[in-house]
Formats: sequence, C-alpha cells, structure tokens
Amino acid sequence: MGNILLKGILAGTKIKDILIKGNTIEQIKDNILLSPEQEKDCKILDCSGKAAIPGFVNMHTHSAMTLTRGYKEDTALQEWLQHIWAVEAKMDEEAIYWGTRLACLEMIKTGTTCFYDQYWMPQTAMEAVKEMGMRSVHAFVALNLKDESKNRGIMEGMEQMYSQSRSWGEMHKMSVGVHAPYTVSDNLIKWCTDFAREKKLTVHIHMSETEQENLDSIKLNGCTPFEHLEKLDALGPETIAAHCVWLSENDMDIMAKYGVTAVHNVNSNLKLSSGSRFKYNELKERGVRVCLGTDGCGSSNNLDMREAMKTAALLQKGWRRDPLALPLNELLNIATANGADALGLDAGRIEEGKLADIAIIDIDNYAFVPNLDFLSNLVYSANSSCIESLICNGELIMEQRRVKGEREIIENARKVCNKLYK
Amino acid sequence: MGNILLKGILAGTKIKDILIKGNTIEQIKDNILLSPEQEKDCKILDCSGKAAIPGFVNMHTHSAMTLTRGYKEDTALQEWLQHIWAVEAKMDEEAIYWGTRLACLEMIKTGTTCFYDQYWMPQTAMEAVKEMGMRSVHAFVALNLKDESKNRGIMEGMEQMYSQSRSWGEMHKMSVGVHAPYTVSDNLIKWCTDFAREKKLTVHIHMSETEQENLDSIKLNGCTPFEHLEKLDALGPETIAAHCVWLSENDMDIMAKYGVTAVHNVNSNLKLSSGSRFKYNELKERGVRVCLGTDGCGSSNNLDMREAMKTAALLQKGWRRDPLALPLNELLNIATANGADALGLDAGRIEEGKLADIAIIDIDNYAFVPNLDFLSNLVYSANSSCIESLICNGELIMEQRRVKGEREIIENARKVCNKLYK
Repeated sequence: MGNILLKGILAGTKIKDILIKGNTIEQIKDNILLSPEQEKDCKILDCSGKAAIPGFVNMHTHSAMTLTRGYKEDTALQEWLQHIWAVEAKMDEEAIYWGTRLACLEMIKTGTTCFYDQYWMPQTAMEAVKEMGMRSVHAFVALNLKDESKNRGIMEGMEQMYSQSRSWGEMHKMSVGVHAPYTVSDNLIKWCTDFAREKKLTVHIHMSETEQENLDSIKLNGCTPFEHLEKLDALGPETIAAHCVWLSENDMDIMAKYGVTAVHNVNSNLKLSSGSRFKYNELKERGVRVCLGTDGCGSSNNLDMREAMKTAALLQKGWRRDPLALPLNELLNIATANGADALGLDAGRIEEGKLADIAIIDIDNYAFVPNLDFLSNLVYSANSSCIESLICNGELIMEQRRVKGEREIIENARKVCNKLYK
Repeated sequence: MGNILLKGILAGTKIKDILIKGNTIEQIKDNILLSPEQEKDCKILDCSGKAAIPGFVNMHTHSAMTLTRGYKEDTALQEWLQHIWAVEAKMDEEAIYWGTRLACLEMIKTGTTCFYDQYWMPQTAMEAVKEMGMRSVHAFVALNLKDESKNRGIMEGMEQMYSQSRSWGEMHKMSVGVHAPYTVSDNLIKWCTDFAREKKLTVHIHMSETEQENLDSIKLNGCTPFEHLEKLDALGPETIAAHCVWLSENDMDIMAKYGVTAVHNVNSNLKLSSGSRFKYNELKERGVRVCLGTDGCGSSNNLDMREAMKTAALLQKGWRRDPLALPLNELLNIATANGADALGLDAGRIEEGKLADIAIIDIDNYAFVPNLDFLSNLVYSANSSCIESLICNGELIMEQRRVKGEREIIENARKVCNKLYK
C-alpha cells in the first residue's frame, strides 16, 4: 500500500494538501513537501479544481437488490411484493455475488465508501465487496414470520456466520439483522439482542416504516413497535433502526433514552408511499443520531447517497414549511460522520488520524459555477457524476471515474438477470 | 444542415433507425438503407446501447439566475430575497449574456432542448440561446408593483420587444410575462392580456405559488388569484401559469374552463417551502395540461429536468400516499410533449414529422442494469450524465457530452460572478 498526496484540494472552506499514509489521513496542511525518498513511494494527485469530502456511509441497503431494479414499476404494493419475492426466490450465490458487485460499482461511482447491508448470503456478499475495496457491514437476517420452529436454524446460521466473520478482516463486519418486530417473534428478537450484546455487534432492524405496522402493533401488543422493543429489553446503542417514519413522541424519547440510531431512507419512503414526514428536528433535539440510507434498488432504484441528501433536505423543507430545515452542514454529517460513528468506524471526517475514506469531487464544471457555496452546489446543483475519484482505506478504488472490473460486472450482472427473468 | 441517421436506437420499447432530415424526424423504421448519394450528406451514429427520448421542455425558469446559484443558502426567505435582489440589481448585459449561456450549457448537458424563460433583458438572453442552438421562449416581464405610473414604460418595452422579436427566427419566440397578480395592477394585467391575444403570444404568470399570496388575494379582492384573473377576463389557452401549488376546487375548474396550462416546479416549491402538495391528479382529471419546470437557479439550484421528473413523481407518491401516483409514461409527457404543446411547437415526441429535438441516452452502464424498464431506470436510477448527445432542430448541439464553447462559458461566467460578488 503506497501513500497518496492530494495537492491543493478544497477541504471544508480552504485549499490544503492531504497526505494519506497507509489507510489513514496522516497530515492536512497548506503545503506538504516530500523528501525524494518519500516521493518514490507516493502517488501525487494534482487536485486543483477539486474538493474532498468524506466518502458516504450508506446506512441501509439490500445491495443485491440491484438485480430487481425497475421491475414491475407502477404496480400496487402487495402485487409488486409478490413479483419481487418470486425473483428473490430464484437468486443463487452467483446472483448475490454479481448483484452485490453491481451495487458496489454504483456506490463507488456515486461516492460511497461504506455500507450497511441486510440481505441473503452475507458471506457471498462480503466476498463481492472485498473484491471492490469498499467497507461493509453485513447483517445476517433473522426472519421467522413468528414461526418459532424456524428459530433453531436461524440461530445456527447466525452463529456460523459469526465464526466465518472472524476471518473477514478489518474492512468487513458482521451485524445481527432482525427483519422487523412484525416479522420476528419476541423470543427470536430477545435471542438476537443477547447474541449481539455478547459478541459486541450492532443490530439492524426495520422500525415503523409504515403506519399500518404501527397500527397492527398497537392492536396486537397494545403499544408501538419501539415501546414493544423496550419491554423486551431489545434496545440499546447497538440498535440501528431503519426507516422510523411513524414515530410518536414517546417513541423518540425511548430512542434517545437507549441511544438508538435512526436511518432515514427518504427515496424509498416516498416511492413506496410509506411516509413523508421523517421527524428530523424532533430526533435531533433529543440527541438521537440520524443517518442516511438509500434502501435497496427494489424500492428506491439507486444507491446514490448524494441524491438522497438532496431529497432528504427538500422533503424536510417542504413538509415542515421551513426553508431553514436540515441545513447543509448537518446534511453532510448524516450522510458521512454519523454513519461512521454508528458503525464504530474512525472515519466519516476529513481530519488527521481518521481512516482515509475520501471522495474527490470535480468542481471545474457548470454545476459549480459560481462556487459561492461548495456544499450547496454538491447537494443541490450537481449530479453524482461530479464524483471523480474515490479513496477507501487509503486505496484509490475509483480514479477519473474508472473502476476496476466495470465491464465484467455489467456483463455478468446482465447474464444473471437474463436467468432470473427468463 | 446535413442529415443524421441514428442506427439501432431504443425508441419507446423497440430498437429502430431514426432518420433526421433538416430539422424534422423524417423516418422511423427497422432498418433504414441509404443510397450512396444520401450517405454522403448524412452523419450516421451507431446507437447500439443507446436510447432516444424527446428533448426536455423546461416550462419555467429564470435562466441567468445561474449566476445566483448557491448564494446565501439556509437563510430565511425574506432575508434571502434581499440578498438576491441586490445581486440582480448589478446584472448588466454581459452578466445576462453569460448567465444565460451558462444556463443553456447546463440544460444541454441535462437533455433540455427548449425552455420558457422569464427574466430581464430578453433580447440579450435570446442572443445567448441562439449561440447555443436551443429553442427558447422569452417572456418580457411586466412588473409594476401596482404603481400605474410605470405602465407606460412597460407597455413601450413590451411593444419594442415585440418588434425586435419579429427577426428572432423560428427557434425563438417572445411571450408576454405578467409577474404575478400580487405584483401587477389589474390595468396592466388587462393590457398584457389584450396585447398577447392580439399578437397571438402566450402569457407567462406566477400563480398561487405560496399560501400567503392566496390569503392576501382573498383579503384584497375577496377571491383567489385565479378567480380574480377570471373576473379580469385574463385567462385563456394562452395562459401558462407557473407553480399553482395552492389551488381550490374552483380554481382548478376555472383552469379547465379556460384551457390554462399549469407548470409544476417541484424542487423550487420544496426548497423555498412554498408548498408540497401539487394537485396533479385533480388537474389531470379536469383535463388541465400539466408541464414541468425547474424554476431559476436562485431557488432550485439546477436546471435538471430529468431530476425534476424524479422529485415530482416521488413527491406525488409521498404526499398522496399512493405508489401508483404519477406513473412513468405521464411523467415523461409532462417533461416533454405537454410543454411543446403549450408552446405551440410540433415537438416533444419521437414521431415521424415532428421537429427533431432528441436526447440520446447511454444505457450501457450500471444505472441501466438490468434494463427491465428503460423509463424507470432513466428517471429513478440514473443521473443526468447518462444524457450523451442532444439534437435540437436537427442539429447535434451536444455530442458525447461535448458542448461547443463549454470552457469559454465557464470562464466568462466566473469572471462575471467575480464582479457581481466582489
């Protein structure tokens, strides 16, 4: 692993040099001079007309669902789900592998360095991600549809995955996935929680995505999903809750009390009509960490975190009727630093000592003219083709929009889809 | 002007050849064979891995406001307006010229072939557009802030512009701009309406953009802005009303009765928190023509119609809580054919005999894998860098993402901004 020197790059509001040594941001200062000895081992990139931001951390996706992109658009939700499930039932390891690589290709092209995955065959998915040089966290999905006879198999699968994950290396982590309170029995939720706490893993769970699941929970349990999980002692700082679109005041108090992280999946929530009033301000005021995710391509069609930032901000401003809602600096944090924090990664910030996960943005184009406010242009004006190069863990995984293996991935993903949809 | 043959391009759901002769789509069929004589005068483009859609028609913008892109983000609306007006007051012809060319550059890069402009110095703006090879309609803005002493100057300006516009050629039209019912006196509205009807021009007007202007109208006139314009006999098929976010049932009945066109500016309405419940279904059911616009870069930061399609669809699905709202085929129409119809252009469709305004989309990339639904991928999955080439009036105005004069435009726009913001 050589070093990388980014010469003259806009970082925050100033132009600096950034020296990356190994997998870490070693130095950020005005003019870094290398000795001839240092230069030999260093890739020097002229970054005039470029800016650096932390690589995005996509905190909720089902990556291999790239293979279901655009399937059965404009059909009603229940009918659509039947179609999707039929395709998913046909996905084998080859499909998961190429579907995940396709997802990584897209995430790299749009500036993401790390993602939190919840999908089938996490070992295979992890191998696909490793090939691409990204970071990932893979939740093994516990989903028993309240049929306790399935628990033993799920528990064994979880334990086996845990053993396998010990050899994944530092770039990939395992997580405990609990699909949702309405699809997983209390016993299994409790076992998963204990397992995660014992092994010091995060728990990834879908929470209050639709109004219906809240109404059903109140009917069945006499309380909301968050209240129910509190009763089960299944909430803690390890809990990373996706969606959270339908939250009561008490739900948010509970989230704050236990240090739960919320993941906003704005495009998916809108496209599926799940809900459009994510309570960002109310969560922030309580000190609940909010992150951003794209969800899978089944529901949200792409994995573009920059675009998700824009939709998230527009929607907050829109539904709250407040043009000051979700300002730009907070927006970048929910897409980068907050996700890294939730996953326990020393990344998500362009600071000395942090992991070198950096997106290099081309600002020498129409979308950044005038460049009165770089972040505004990045979020509101540009599209994600402005992301020109990407560094993950100190390695250049995209350079000048070129990603290793791109043609092979596209061709193999097409082949896999031909089988799935024939 | 030579001819262009697009070989093997996805058009609709089938792969066809498209022959463009002069400024018109001459022929669309399976395999167009040219004689050696015809070939000499024809540019033949291999379009395998490409798709054709009509160029977008951006039905509401203030193009030279590119120069205010990202200025004073996250400040309250009234304070923000003060800042913007101070900059606009300093804009001279040079600023309008380069601001408009910058806008055209961005619109071309994102697939727009025609736009409806409402801004200062329309003659200068038109010259900038002509240089770029796009179509445009320029509304001369009547805005007297209810001070009747200004009417004479405005009327003279309108008449002078009309005389000038006689020599603009077929690619550029003049329109009558009435800023809004709350900023223009009834007398001037009536004069503008008569002038437009006499000269057979469209009228471009901001209508019911904010709830406040409706409340103010009810207080002042005892009725909504649309009801007020009806009383003035100022509505007709020539009326193209931007925004229309706050409409009563009666307002929509009136729009249908007089054949008014509505322009939805979704990103602007969200970002300024003007309103998030555009009544697409209710307008459609009444037969009101709905088009799409981006608004100016002051409020919506970019001029990307493809992106606007996505936000418009997501928002309809979100606020209506209906995943079937605003389906893909209707979405493409509001961004293309409906705009052309409203402006009286025989364009906006890939059909024989129509004007050759065509965007060529690169579908050989990750965003279109799998390609189960081209329109879904275009709208929901891709970003606008998929727009690879653009034909307007039979001329290639972007080829392989290259636009004539791009560097010059960026450099001059920057120079102009340095003066505006120094």
